[in-house]
Amino acid sequence: MYIDKAEQPGPAVTAIDLGGTAMKGSVWDRAGRELLRRDRPTPVAAGVLAIVAAVVDLHHELVSALHEQDPELSVQALGLICPGLVDPRGGIALYSANLGWRDLPLRELVSAALAMPVSLDHDVRSAGRAEAEFGAARGVSEALYVQIGTGIAATLIIGGEVLVGSRGRTGEIGHVPARPDGEPCACGQRGCTETYASAAAIARRYRSRTREPAGLGVEIDAGIDAEVVIARAAAGDDAARQVFDEAIQALAIALAGYTMLADPELIVLGGGLSRAGALLIDPLAAELTARLTWREPPRITIGAFAADAGRRGAAQAALRLLSPAWQ
Amino acid sequence: MYIDKAEQPGPAVTAIDLGGTAMKGSVWDRAGRELLRRDRPTPVAAGVLAIVAAVVDLHHELVSALHEQDPELSVQALGLICPGLVDPRGGIALYSANLGWRDLPLRELVSAALAMPVSLDHDVRSAGRAEAEFGAARGVSEALYVQIGTGIAATLIIGGEVLVGSRGRTGEIGHVPARPDGEPCACGQRGCTETYASAAAIARRYRSRTREPAGLGVEIDAGIDAEVVIARAAAGDDAARQVFDEAIQALAIALAGYTMLADPELIVLGGGLSRAGALLIDPLAAELTARLTWREPPRITIGAFAADAGRRGAAQAALRLLSPAWQ
Repeated sequence: MYIDKAEQPGPAVTAIDLGGTAMKGSVWDRAGRELLRRDRPTPVAAGVLAIVAAVVDLHHELVSALHEQDPELSVQALGLICPGLVDPRGGIALYSANLGWRDLPLRELVSAALAMPVSLDHDVRSAGRAEAEFGAARGVSEALYVQIGTGIAATLIIGGEVLVGSRGRTGEIGHVPARPDGEPCACGQRGCTETYASAAAIARRYRSRTREPAGLGVEIDAGIDAEVVIARAAAGDDAARQVFDEAIQALAIALAGYTMLADPELIVLGGGLSRAGALLIDPLAAELTARLTWREPPRITIGAFAADAGRRGAAQAALRLLSPAWQ
Repeated sequence: MYIDKAEQPGPAVTAIDLGGTAMKGSVWDRAGRELLRRDRPTPVAAGVLAIVAAVVDLHHELVSALHEQDPELSVQALGLICPGLVDPRGGIALYSANLGWRDLPLRELVSAALAMPVSLDHDVRSAGRAEAEFGAARGVSEALYVQIGTGIAATLIIGGEVLVGSRGRTGEIGHVPARPDGEPCACGQRGCTETYASAAAIARRYRSRTREPAGLGVEIDAGIDAEVVIARAAAGDDAARQVFDEAIQALAIALAGYTMLADPELIVLGGGLSRAGALLIDPLAAELTARLTWREPPRITIGAFAADAGRRGAAQAALRLLSPAWQ
């Protein structure tokens, strides 16, 4: 995909990014072009089976919308991604606190309902795969993609391939203990990286020091709120600077540990916080360099696909389910 | 190798483990049997070129000793391993504080002096390779080998292969920040895992609390001293228990971080401290389990080759340099 092999109509795929609050659907052609989007809220309160039914409904809605837009294209596979712990080989949604499941055979459930091939992967691993194959980490053998939004998760790129791990539970850098026995994390542990460094944590920790209400930015959005904190830190606000410094330190501790272990050449940042650009990269690179001994630090850059990386990776995975001739 | 393909004489290889105090030489046949050993001190004070010359001398001594023992075998390659940062693809000894070098083309130097193929790798990666191919991690796709002695280093086994990284600098788990901003480490950072959890650190930290002189055990050996501390901890000595608990916590923090990122199935412990067996594994497994959320911890076991793992891996690497027919 992403090479425009032919102009004649071919198969299309849907991609659904199943998040804790919203389900984001899209349709892609075999050249990797996004054709349309449809979103809807995730019916979390209605339970696991209602969520699965909503995925199936959203897929049908996408197919109908595509048919109106271009009757010659036919959807032939679905690329599904979700948060939590996901085993992509077995197609199992292992665990998600937000979505309320454990060991759910999500891929087979949806595939049976649609009578169509379905791929399932972790949302951030999918985003990292897109960056590795076509984005900022293209051509780099050893890299780490780190997505910083409401939480923090990563994709390990090892030998140019996305690491799935022994049961598909890789990349939980948000729960690497950056400050062991530090502040409590929602996961039950203490001092997890994302407790200090996620966009949500930056906004929350700043609010708790300044007692400002939620929604510092244009809307109530952790990413935007964190951007406001970063901008205030740059402008000299002491509380903002302290919260942002602690975020940078936690990130640098987690990244130094990974660098010591796996020796990546490149770190790619994605997710809402990566919109801060140089305001994020410059202090993070300085802190990471200071925390490494004997070695040059890996380069740090911003991802190519911003918020689209996950759905783009899901579409790629769905296209791979079709005949190799279509890729 | 390790499969006794033929009884007739074939090529042999030497393996030299070049450490900061001793050089440990051995000769191996193509079936992976160790034929003899010769050790000598490393002439660290005499400088880098003297160390290289001593490697060459030790190789010649091994060849002569083999000739006396079995005149039909001929040595055809050398497997060299050393500590520090090593780039095995380029054959470069990147850095060693103890051995005093930086960016030394060690493989080419020794190969030119011997007119013979030479392999170069990191000592702990070599040990991990032996455990992955023929030892405790045999057949396991995702594993971590952790060698705990004077320092702590690791071998990452990913997809059944040893991870070399972007410049061969993988596995420095001893310098993963377990206690950021904790006790100073010899590397210049603070709170590195090995500052609390190496055999040397356990002995040193216990001595500093009890003011006992060095050499608690039969001889002055960090491994034995640490074993004494562990035995005293088991017997109820408060200072020993506290030092050992802090070592276990630091190790568990580093291993929890790696598990969150790379999802290994198995952790193999080697090096001097691994002689403590269940006294080490049981509390470490408990602490690791307590520091992981949402998931089963990886299994923890003791390596199959104990102190021989590094030289065994070096011999394997040297045999690989010969014709595939000899492997």
